Amino acid sequence: MRINMTDGAGGKMEKLCFGVDIGGTTIKLGMFNIDGEIKEKWEITTRKADNGKYILEDISTSILGKMSRYDIAPEKCVGIGIGVPGPVTKDGTVLKCVNLGWGVMSVAEKVHERTKVKNIKVANDANVAALGEMWKGGGAGYKNIVMVTLGTGVGGGIIIDGHILTGYNGAAGEIGHIVVNSEEEDECGCSKHGCLEQYASAKGIVRIAHRILDSTEEPSMLREPKRLSAKKVFDMAKEGDKVAIRVIDSFGRYLGLALAHVAQVVDPEVFVIGGGVSRAGQIVTDAVSKYYEENVMFALKNKQFNLAELGNEAGIYGSARMVIEK
Amino acid sequence: MRINMTDGAGGKMEKLCFGVDIGGTTIKLGMFNIDGEIKEKWEITTRKADNGKYILEDISTSILGKMSRYDIAPEKCVGIGIGVPGPVTKDGTVLKCVNLGWGVMSVAEKVHERTKVKNIKVANDANVAALGEMWKGGGAGYKNIVMVTLGTGVGGGIIIDGHILTGYNGAAGEIGHIVVNSEEEDECGCSKHGCLEQYASAKGIVRIAHRILDSTEEPSMLREPKRLSAKKVFDMAKEGDKVAIRVIDSFGRYLGLALAHVAQVVDPEVFVIGGGVSRAGQIVTDAVSKYYEENVMFALKNKQFNLAELGNEAGIYGSARMVIEK
Repeated sequence: MRINMTDGAGGKMEKLCFGVDIGGTTIKLGMFNIDGEIKEKWEITTRKADNGKYILEDISTSILGKMSRYDIAPEKCVGIGIGVPGPVTKDGTVLKCVNLGWGVMSVAEKVHERTKVKNIKVANDANVAALGEMWKGGGAGYKNIVMVTLGTGVGGGIIIDGHILTGYNGAAGEIGHIVVNSEEEDECGCSKHGCLEQYASAKGIVRIAHRILDSTEEPSMLREPKRLSAKKVFDMAKEGDKVAIRVIDSFGRYLGLALAHVAQVVDPEVFVIGGGVSRAGQIVTDAVSKYYEENVMFALKNKQFNLAELGNEAGIYGSARMVIEK
Repeated sequence: MRINMTDGAGGKMEKLCFGVDIGGTTIKLGMFNIDGEIKEKWEITTRKADNGKYILEDISTSILGKMSRYDIAPEKCVGIGIGVPGPVTKDGTVLKCVNLGWGVMSVAEKVHERTKVKNIKVANDANVAALGEMWKGGGAGYKNIVMVTLGTGVGGGIIIDGHILTGYNGAAGEIGHIVVNSEEEDECGCSKHGCLEQYASAKGIVRIAHRILDSTEEPSMLREPKRLSAKKVFDMAKEGDKVAIRVIDSFGRYLGLALAHVAQVVDPEVFVIGGGVSRAGQIVTDAVSKYYEENVMFALKNKQFNLAELGNEAGIYGSARMVIEK
């Protein structure tokens, strides 16, 4: 990628910042200008050895490399934003990241020590993704958004007046573990029963499909020997398969109910739905909005449901946004 | 009430503000110093004639009367905070107050015109009560609280970092209309089915009691010919009446589930439970916290459940707090 490091004023270096999204296997990094144009993006491997003690070192080294290559002095760097897969308090302390082997960790302090960049912001990855979508994705133009990410699990992030809602222990926006079915017998990964994640994640959709297939003799393309996936359920529903349509309806009922609960609490302008499952497109927002409308009071009806637009890059966008937000 | 209008510095007038809580039958008013000491409180009747057009006039006249009596110039008045029984947007526009006969109403503008006081803040009454309890009541010492008011209806107010969470259309914190029972056949006042208000308001508790009494032959003191009330159900439960205990358990299950939903969204420090029903005391918080714990994820467990302390005065305290908050 060629990078234009000059601004319109004639060759003067423009202000830059970095967005980092730490995942369990790879770390995504991006270099942005303060208008949110991405200048370069890259990935490094997440070194989880020795309780993840090399992770922040690797990130700092990688960023220092870019700063040196493009001749960016620490004081010309607006900041470094970092999203981590665990709860983070408002002051940027990570409480725990099981995936990375971390306990309590002062991420900002350690990255500042190594890079000398002053403005380091840290937040939970799902919250950061929501901020990214607000800035440059499916929530652009809004300041009050609820984002829900439907992937292996179900994550959530809430933006109020343009800022992440963190919560007292960094656990705000944990939409995936709202209980939506008190009758559920299977246990969720969090050890509760009937969490949204058990119905609206990719795995949850397959679980619903197996349940419905087991409960009926009805013919369905989902009975093919090929391995069942959430994508296949959506594809078959689009082709009119009645069992697949019932599965999607059930998915929509649980997700619509949970988002209704969220709306009763924070009253957002728009919902943004992301993650692998959302690639199925409008069928997702249609299934959800139907049950959302049934479960919210009058003042909260007719909210917008948008699909996320930044995919895996929402995290680096949102992280970068944290360090330039007012 | 005798009022000391001098401060320690020797006779100089201290700074004062007013808190107003507009209800459907009476308007409560309070005069406070900026430390939250109440100097005087009084009530006037809510004149609902002609679509409530005299209400703001009456409030302004009443406040001007006090200002004149105590010789407070408009510029010595820190401000006037007003709680209204309807949704209010962040800029203080009232969207609708069915109880008062109001449509869209620029409350701040009208009160400013009449009183010449510059700093006028307006918010929803349930939100304002939450702010009052945070300042001087059951949430004192905390900055992130969720208040739920269990009275004729069920109201809610959420405080984040010391400020009211308003929501995009002023409908944040509408906890009473979270759907907690998708199987409910009776209709809620809001026209949905299974809202928290149908189980956790005073009327809701009586409704549960009738249902349980009708479903069993079990003897119970609740079967006495005397009219059933929420208070009686709590009193009998405290005396060991098994049916009454089941009613309170059911009340706790629905309220605990709803507050678990709220916690998954905003992760507060403390819950404050107020309203007439909360006068039953610790039996209320015990019933709720049991089911709360069952329905939240690990990071949100062991939250504090406090009883409200300001009763009917929470509104005037919270309204006053709005005009002196940073």
